[in-house]
Amino acid sequence: MRKAIVEKITRVLRAEGVDAVVTTSPENFAYLTGFVVPTQPMIRHRHAMAILTVDGKESLFGVDMEATTIANKAPETPLTVWREFHDDAMVILAEALKKAGLAEAKIGLEMDYLPAGDFARLVIQMPKATFVPFEAQLNRARQIKTPEEVELIHRLSRIADQAIYDSLTSVRVGDTELDIAAVLTRRIYELGAENFKLLIVATGERSQLPNVGPTSRKLQARDVCRVEIFSVINGYQAGVCRTAYVEEPPAMAEEIWDLMVECKYAILDKIKPGASCLNIYNDFIARLDKIKLPPISFVGHGIGLHLHEDPYIGSTPTIGRPGEDAVVEENMVLGFEPLCYRTGYGFGVQNKDVLHVTANGSVLLSDFTNTDKLIRVGG
Amino acid sequence: MRKAIVEKITRVLRAEGVDAVVTTSPENFAYLTGFVVPTQPMIRHRHAMAILTVDGKESLFGVDMEATTIANKAPETPLTVWREFHDDAMVILAEALKKAGLAEAKIGLEMDYLPAGDFARLVIQMPKATFVPFEAQLNRARQIKTPEEVELIHRLSRIADQAIYDSLTSVRVGDTELDIAAVLTRRIYELGAENFKLLIVATGERSQLPNVGPTSRKLQARDVCRVEIFSVINGYQAGVCRTAYVEEPPAMAEEIWDLMVECKYAILDKIKPGASCLNIYNDFIARLDKIKLPPISFVGHGIGLHLHEDPYIGSTPTIGRPGEDAVVEENMVLGFEPLCYRTGYGFGVQNKDVLHVTANGSVLLSDFTNTDKLIRVGG
Repeated sequence: MRKAIVEKITRVLRAEGVDAVVTTSPENFAYLTGFVVPTQPMIRHRHAMAILTVDGKESLFGVDMEATTIANKAPETPLTVWREFHDDAMVILAEALKKAGLAEAKIGLEMDYLPAGDFARLVIQMPKATFVPFEAQLNRARQIKTPEEVELIHRLSRIADQAIYDSLTSVRVGDTELDIAAVLTRRIYELGAENFKLLIVATGERSQLPNVGPTSRKLQARDVCRVEIFSVINGYQAGVCRTAYVEEPPAMAEEIWDLMVECKYAILDKIKPGASCLNIYNDFIARLDKIKLPPISFVGHGIGLHLHEDPYIGSTPTIGRPGEDAVVEENMVLGFEPLCYRTGYGFGVQNKDVLHVTANGSVLLSDFTNTDKLIRVGG
Repeated sequence: MRKAIVEKITRVLRAEGVDAVVTTSPENFAYLTGFVVPTQPMIRHRHAMAILTVDGKESLFGVDMEATTIANKAPETPLTVWREFHDDAMVILAEALKKAGLAEAKIGLEMDYLPAGDFARLVIQMPKATFVPFEAQLNRARQIKTPEEVELIHRLSRIADQAIYDSLTSVRVGDTELDIAAVLTRRIYELGAENFKLLIVATGERSQLPNVGPTSRKLQARDVCRVEIFSVINGYQAGVCRTAYVEEPPAMAEEIWDLMVECKYAILDKIKPGASCLNIYNDFIARLDKIKLPPISFVGHGIGLHLHEDPYIGSTPTIGRPGEDAVVEENMVLGFEPLCYRTGYGFGVQNKDVLHVTANGSVLLSDFTNTDKLIRVGG
């Protein structure tokens, strides 16, 4: 497991009087171990878990089909293997926890991930244990990144940024959205990502649609092109979105873009340890209103092992706690995205970036492309 | 909602004496409605649910951010919207269920998906209701496809098959795995898929690795190339894998391939309503053993809205019921994949296809490429 993160989590266990944590989500397995069990996110019943006790004892739990992968990645951590088609994973998990001396322990679980049926069977197997929700503590820990995590997200941000830039500058009038996508996905791998998700290529009138993949639509002069992708390594992800025009900007595109750029710099400027997420959001909404652009419900959020993490730079910065503000802290990493889909001019624009909160301010991590002006497609 | 499927599920509700089902997984939402709520599979807390009562009353439940999408796709189905940053989704769900007259009802839930924490809060909100697991019934219903589902999976299978074939036949010595991937992903979209998952491009010695994306590795004569992809539309998915050699087949590649082809036809031949999954699997393993290839734990499984569905053509055909066989039924759709990664010759081969079980036998759905011989790369 990862030393700095194990130390952080054992401190939380100690502070809360919890004897051990058993992760159940792919994100938190990756958080403790530094790697993803390949099929866990895709095949729901293939439980993989990281077990950490308050005195720092580490162990892993995984399905037989992934046992070799897990053992190769974490050769020094004891691994309990359950058999996919034969065992009830919860029975084998309970045995492992009992062997680890946790039969009567207070055990933290991700109650927002572990299915209700599995939980009920685990409780039957371990009648003397106490189970407490621990997802908030894990999510809280994940908000503050280690230097190694910041470095990886910086790398991922630059990969996505450069891949988008290269794809947009490789096409011209008459090429299609598929031509953009082909260069984009190729560059994502070439630049070193393991994988990607959420590919959006939306040009012309389609640039107003939030989540659409590439089509055979041909580029025409005065199209707006919105291109987004998340690059992925070891479960960490960074999403970048860039906007371009083809040959000539359509009416109002540059004016609206200038406002997006103003918002970007305002956010980078205001974000620092101690800043109020609500204030930053309200400032953003006020800027949109200057040219009567419609408000959006958030302009940023934490990012890392999950697409969206707390805090949100939005009307409600912490999920499930309406009315409460959240405060920016050092070593948070936030995605932020001034955007406007319904401009009234038949196009949408978006600029999604990633930043790191430093001791005194913030640093842009998606720093490959100069976005001060719209990218020009077509030479 | 989809008429044929609603009728099927209401029959199950009636037979089991259950008053209503509330789906919680993205697959079963898509199963009842025919569409996916875009961010539900990615952002865990964004619950979207389809509610169906035993007397055929339909309603939907979704987060505010997806309300427009849901309403556009299902304009005639009543929709309850919960607010992402303000509401406990379970409180709003309970209100909706009570309004629908289900306060004291017996309600089927997916206990293998609904998180334990949500379930506990739902129970508190609805103390007079009875909740029963309903995932097995939904999974069972999904095993038998409607003609519309078979047609979609046929289309998806052909898309993946043709995209792989086109990518392999577009490259030559000196091109890279990235060149294969670029053509492949482009063709997937061009041929009409909404999306794809699980892209594998593994050439040369890498063809032995189970789950690897493309790299800058250059193709050389006598490489084996294993290429796999799943194409996706409306949550349905079909996975196809093809194997090729570059210019000249390496030693034993054609002999091993001939055995894979023999296994493919043996499976297509044996699969028909009433056939034993265990017998088909044992026959496959015996064929591998003829040239001392190592056994694998299953050679096929149901496919549709989930990557892996029951039954498995494997040593244990039904998950969680070791020792029990499963019987092939009309209108099942199965993925099947004779494969061998560790040949001892430094390469791996795999042929993943999709079939439909008809009244008397089976029909290949991934029927674009002739796989009787290895595909030749390099003209």
